[in-house]
Amino acid sequence: MRYEMKTEGNEGIMVKVGIIGSTGYAGQELVRLLLAHKDAEIVWYGSRSYIDQKYSDVYGNMFKLVDAKCMDDNMDELSKQADVIFTATPQGLAASLVTEDILSRCKIVDLSADYRIKDVATYEKWYGITHASPQFIDEAVYGLCEINRDKIKGARLIANPGCYTTCSILSLYPLVKERLIDVKTIIIDAKSGVSGAGRGAKVANLYCEVNESIKAYGVTTHRHTPEIEEQLGYAYDGTPLLVNFTPHLVPMNRGILVTAYANLLDGVDEAQVAAAYEKYYKDETFIRLLPAGKCPETRCVEGSNYTDIGFMIDPRTRRVVAMGALDNVVKGAAGQAVQNMNLIMGLDETEGLMLPPMFP
Amino acid sequence: MRYEMKTEGNEGIMVKVGIIGSTGYAGQELVRLLLAHKDAEIVWYGSRSYIDQKYSDVYGNMFKLVDAKCMDDNMDELSKQADVIFTATPQGLAASLVTEDILSRCKIVDLSADYRIKDVATYEKWYGITHASPQFIDEAVYGLCEINRDKIKGARLIANPGCYTTCSILSLYPLVKERLIDVKTIIIDAKSGVSGAGRGAKVANLYCEVNESIKAYGVTTHRHTPEIEEQLGYAYDGTPLLVNFTPHLVPMNRGILVTAYANLLDGVDEAQVAAAYEKYYKDETFIRLLPAGKCPETRCVEGSNYTDIGFMIDPRTRRVVAMGALDNVVKGAAGQAVQNMNLIMGLDETEGLMLPPMFP
Amino acid sequence: MRYEMKTEGNEGIMVKVGIIGSTGYAGQELVRLLLAHKDAEIVWYGSRSYIDQKYSDVYGNMFKLVDAKCMDDNMDELSKQADVIFTATPQGLAASLVTEDILSRCKIVDLSADYRIKDVATYEKWYGITHASPQFIDEAVYGLCEINRDKIKGARLIANPGCYTTCSILSLYPLVKERLIDVKTIIIDAKSGVSGAGRGAKVANLYCEVNESIKAYGVTTHRHTPEIEEQLGYAYDGTPLLVNFTPHLVPMNRGILVTAYANLLDGVDEAQVAAAYEKYYKDETFIRLLPAGKCPETRCVEGSNYTDIGFMIDPRTRRVVAMGALDNVVKGAAGQAVQNMNLIMGLDETEGLMLPPMFP
Amino acid sequence: MRYEMKTEGNEGIMVKVGIIGSTGYAGQELVRLLLAHKDAEIVWYGSRSYIDQKYSDVYGNMFKLVDAKCMDDNMDELSKQADVIFTATPQGLAASLVTEDILSRCKIVDLSADYRIKDVATYEKWYGITHASPQFIDEAVYGLCEINRDKIKGARLIANPGCYTTCSILSLYPLVKERLIDVKTIIIDAKSGVSGAGRGAKVANLYCEVNESIKAYGVTTHRHTPEIEEQLGYAYDGTPLLVNFTPHLVPMNRGILVTAYANLLDGVDEAQVAAAYEKYYKDETFIRLLPAGKCPETRCVEGSNYTDIGFMIDPRTRRVVAMGALDNVVKGAAGQAVQNMNLIMGLDETEGLMLPPMFP
Repeated sequence: MRYEMKTEGNEGIMVKVGIIGSTGYAGQELVRLLLAHKDAEIVWYGSRSYIDQKYSDVYGNMFKLVDAKCMDDNMDELSKQADVIFTATPQGLAASLVTEDILSRCKIVDLSADYRIKDVATYEKWYGITHASPQFIDEAVYGLCEINRDKIKGARLIANPGCYTTCSILSLYPLVKERLIDVKTIIIDAKSGVSGAGRGAKVANLYCEVNESIKAYGVTTHRHTPEIEEQLGYAYDGTPLLVNFTPHLVPMNRGILVTAYANLLDGVDEAQVAAAYEKYYKDETFIRLLPAGKCPETRCVEGSNYTDIGFMIDPRTRRVVAMGALDNVVKGAAGQAVQNMNLIMGLDETEGLMLPPMFP
Repeated sequence: MRYEMKTEGNEGIMVKVGIIGSTGYAGQELVRLLLAHKDAEIVWYGSRSYIDQKYSDVYGNMFKLVDAKCMDDNMDELSKQADVIFTATPQGLAASLVTEDILSRCKIVDLSADYRIKDVATYEKWYGITHASPQFIDEAVYGLCEINRDKIKGARLIANPGCYTTCSILSLYPLVKERLIDVKTIIIDAKSGVSGAGRGAKVANLYCEVNESIKAYGVTTHRHTPEIEEQLGYAYDGTPLLVNFTPHLVPMNRGILVTAYANLLDGVDEAQVAAAYEKYYKDETFIRLLPAGKCPETRCVEGSNYTDIGFMIDPRTRRVVAMGALDNVVKGAAGQAVQNMNLIMGLDETEGLMLPPMFP
Repeated sequence: MRYEMKTEGNEGIMVKVGIIGSTGYAGQELVRLLLAHKDAEIVWYGSRSYIDQKYSDVYGNMFKLVDAKCMDDNMDELSKQADVIFTATPQGLAASLVTEDILSRCKIVDLSADYRIKDVATYEKWYGITHASPQFIDEAVYGLCEINRDKIKGARLIANPGCYTTCSILSLYPLVKERLIDVKTIIIDAKSGVSGAGRGAKVANLYCEVNESIKAYGVTTHRHTPEIEEQLGYAYDGTPLLVNFTPHLVPMNRGILVTAYANLLDGVDEAQVAAAYEKYYKDETFIRLLPAGKCPETRCVEGSNYTDIGFMIDPRTRRVVAMGALDNVVKGAAGQAVQNMNLIMGLDETEGLMLPPMFP
Repeated sequence: MRYEMKTEGNEGIMVKVGIIGSTGYAGQELVRLLLAHKDAEIVWYGSRSYIDQKYSDVYGNMFKLVDAKCMDDNMDELSKQADVIFTATPQGLAASLVTEDILSRCKIVDLSADYRIKDVATYEKWYGITHASPQFIDEAVYGLCEINRDKIKGARLIANPGCYTTCSILSLYPLVKERLIDVKTIIIDAKSGVSGAGRGAKVANLYCEVNESIKAYGVTTHRHTPEIEEQLGYAYDGTPLLVNFTPHLVPMNRGILVTAYANLLDGVDEAQVAAAYEKYYKDETFIRLLPAGKCPETRCVEGSNYTDIGFMIDPRTRRVVAMGALDNVVKGAAGQAVQNMNLIMGLDETEGLMLPPMFP
């Protein structure tokens, strides 16, 4: 058994990992991925809500695979036991737990938004909370591996991108970077499965409330907007762009689909658009550029770390429709976090992530 | 029992109705609605594919409610028995069946696209078929009741609007009509349940192929595009607009959600947008304008003839996000067809359609 | 509009109705059904949790259809305004609210289990609560309309049957009553949609927890067991039977399917089984006996008050497999409650309930 | 990348594998599992229906992971290239393709029913076809690894068990083998996800036909019945038992849940039942015996090769309710087939199968 063999010791390094927030959906997906990761071992299943309960009582799928009990979020103690800490926690919590001491002892990959936005005022405005450790924001590297790979390798603190954000940026990055589109016309219409809403007990996320329906939410106000704008801005002229971002809730467990619209600049043709995507992604393991005329579908990436990208050009309106699909819990959260861990720990970037998408 | 009582005769008129294509999803929904319609009686369950089979063997929900067997599509004979014929048929079929003789004897509500587009060349280009009876196109009235009510009342031939189209037009009409938006910037991102794909046995529509996934399809090429463009054009300056329309397939049975984007013209504010919607829809029974800040959800209209409409304005980008939700099988097909029948037969427009949405 | 027309007064009686617990799924379905009921008018939307909030803010589907705000559960006051009170409340609540005074003024249809079980000790054991008004248990009539129609007509207090129970009893009643099966061998394997679990905010009922899974629950201990045993016992020799009842949670909004097994007594053949079902159900509007060889499906009854029943005999094992399907929110709750209201108020039993099942 | 590394050669053996029927759901799952199997390499993607088409055009999830085109079903040629052939084909096809020549060159794991039933007459009666190669039936080993492990190791031809069958037998085997239950009282009520119905384009399996519904089918006549009866018979006295088996279709992609009922023999208590399960399964990697009081859920095994088993005893009726859950495409088809391959090729039985279940 692969994940049992690991405890028998192997020739290479064995990264010791702690997870704060291991009983959320992203935290649990970290567990799934790390159990099958040959160079990592989970030493701390943190979960405020379930301290001292068996992890497998919280997630029955982990029965007989995880024997551990849930621990508190004592990051100080954890940092003495772990090489890498994943914080898969509500907004604001990671910012309140990180200290220089901890960072001096181990790497942190934060799956929350706390260190994603460089401008504290922007963060505090969109999230409505005061940032508890702004002194680390500058140092934090935005962990979108395909774009920031080199910076990530040397980082102590990774701001793991949001799920909508990853899909939106990857879908548009080459077009912005190569200046093929009018960046003032970008509209991102995104659709997400329900796991993105987390495991909190809310009426709005009950089966009967979500099933057999679709809705937009957070229209013009969703918190992933400034993150997208900042990162696409870096690809353009260094200052944030201004985009419309509209998320929708879709009755399915996993998956994000982004349908993004923008006006092509004068003279730009389909070949140039295709070439731009090729230029940045053709060697990327986890980005699959679809053949011309094919649209991405979330079912084709489920359970995997892939982002599928395709585009269509409308010759009548001179707009490009750029589309991306990923699994919000994998490439949109836990998978990308492991990818970041691999990079900062000097492992093969793809280790533990070469899972073929599961269908149906 | 209402649908039995009807046969005992009542004081008012009793409209005799035939359905060609009664075993498709739209046809079956016509049956559901007409069974509960106090002034209508179905005399012909047409279905090429199931001739002589009991209707309730094709649709088990109609067991004991419909005793009839399926008939052929002999429109000539049917027109002698019926006051109104609904054609819920594949593109091109209705056009090949309608004759002056038939129209002289009864009214026709065509749920297909055959008479929706005034320009034959546009129809033939987008649908890839030759129109078999272009001589009736001019006479046909586009049956979007809230917009064309008066014309509908006197018509012999109704072109019942498409499902995506109804939702798209109703969501944008007041903004276009009142010239509040830059019509060159309209982008319509639409999401549909699977019943819109019909009941044909195709791998792509199997449960496991659709479930747990979302995708765009027909990007830049979907046939409802020219219909939207023509109708919105009438609201503007009489010539078709040019829009981007992107449909998506969502894993749910029923429902269409439209998320439409457009740039507000200079100086236009939220109050003006709200006033425009009020102006055209405040007295409409089947359009429900949501309070400010509320987004429509398809679950809130399921099984009903309502279209829920809401909007948000993004002060940062100066765009309006107009959203509409309807049940594609009801207001997007059979319900609107019955609404048209009510109008052309002089019945109360809402008769048989005051069904509260069913949730969950 | 029918539901507005009603307030203008009509020639017949107009039953004034109050609903305690109107914001649960069963309560909301009562609203849906009563809005379309020509002889009833809702005067009280009771809901402890949402007092003073607009009903349509709690259930968006009711926007523009219900203008009222939620009220408290002051049954005393309500009984002065209403002819019939529906209590769609958690176990134990109705028992604590009913008084002789109230019953002297109006009829009560209790959708909870409080008055279903004649033996108080059995009730208290299975439900784990003390019964607050055992003095009314004797008087309460078990509101399974097809079985107890005559008693219902004269009742003041109706114990509306449970959803699993209705389906289980109706599926087996003729076989027990006619003594065609060995009652000691009855096994009931039942499957329910998620609305049966109610609208409480629990992790176990979140979309992602329920979707893409099936499980049994309450195995050997579910509270509907003694209710089934008591009622089937009345059909046999007056004392409760002993059965195995196993409920399962199915990822769908509505519907209950019962698959029941029993050994046929010696000599009993298929014709006798069919004849038994015919004997009791052939004139029942809301029971549809399927043709030989057909199995009921919940989709065929969705949104309606029908129970579809079919059976198969296994000549190899000499067992009958009796199957029933209903909509748990309609015939399993609100629909049957309205049927009971119709009976006790002397209305046509089917008034407001002749809704063709909605599919898909 | 693990599955690419394999082609660079590694120290151990590399099993060459061909799949006949690789474009069905079970065939595709074989591809998913074998891509991640470190000791196997797929050399032949057989698919009659898609010859010469790219495999990844048929299954978009395999884009960039499988570069091969689909091949015909030339088993003779394939047997010269492969060490193991999987036949994931319609009933009757494998029987018509297997020859002594082929078997002399390579091992065959047949995922169809062709070699599962030892009695040809029984096979031909339940399947309604003539067996084309009955001479191999005796030699074929029933590939239920946990029960027949030793026989499997030396086999040339494996009859890979059915999905319902695997779940039913594993749930009941210890009880039958240890003679704790009255085998004449066994009733198996089974529920399956839709992938079990295959990828054929049938109206009955369309999204809208399956979604939001549950039904029984094949009641008293399902073909897995004699397979269960034969195998449980071997555990008892060598002759087939007689059971009731009722399959149900559940709106979910994957998963089978079995709820089985039987009368306990006199004196048998809970401890004995628990001990029986422990005796046979406590060392089995792929069987997880749940703690007392826990019921299996299909979501806890999705994507994995595990079978979760639990039971409850009803002291009132003296029945045991034995429950099992597995993923029909993995342990119920492709996973078990790989487990068989591992056994017959002398690999670690669990190689390629230690996938933690994916949730949600």
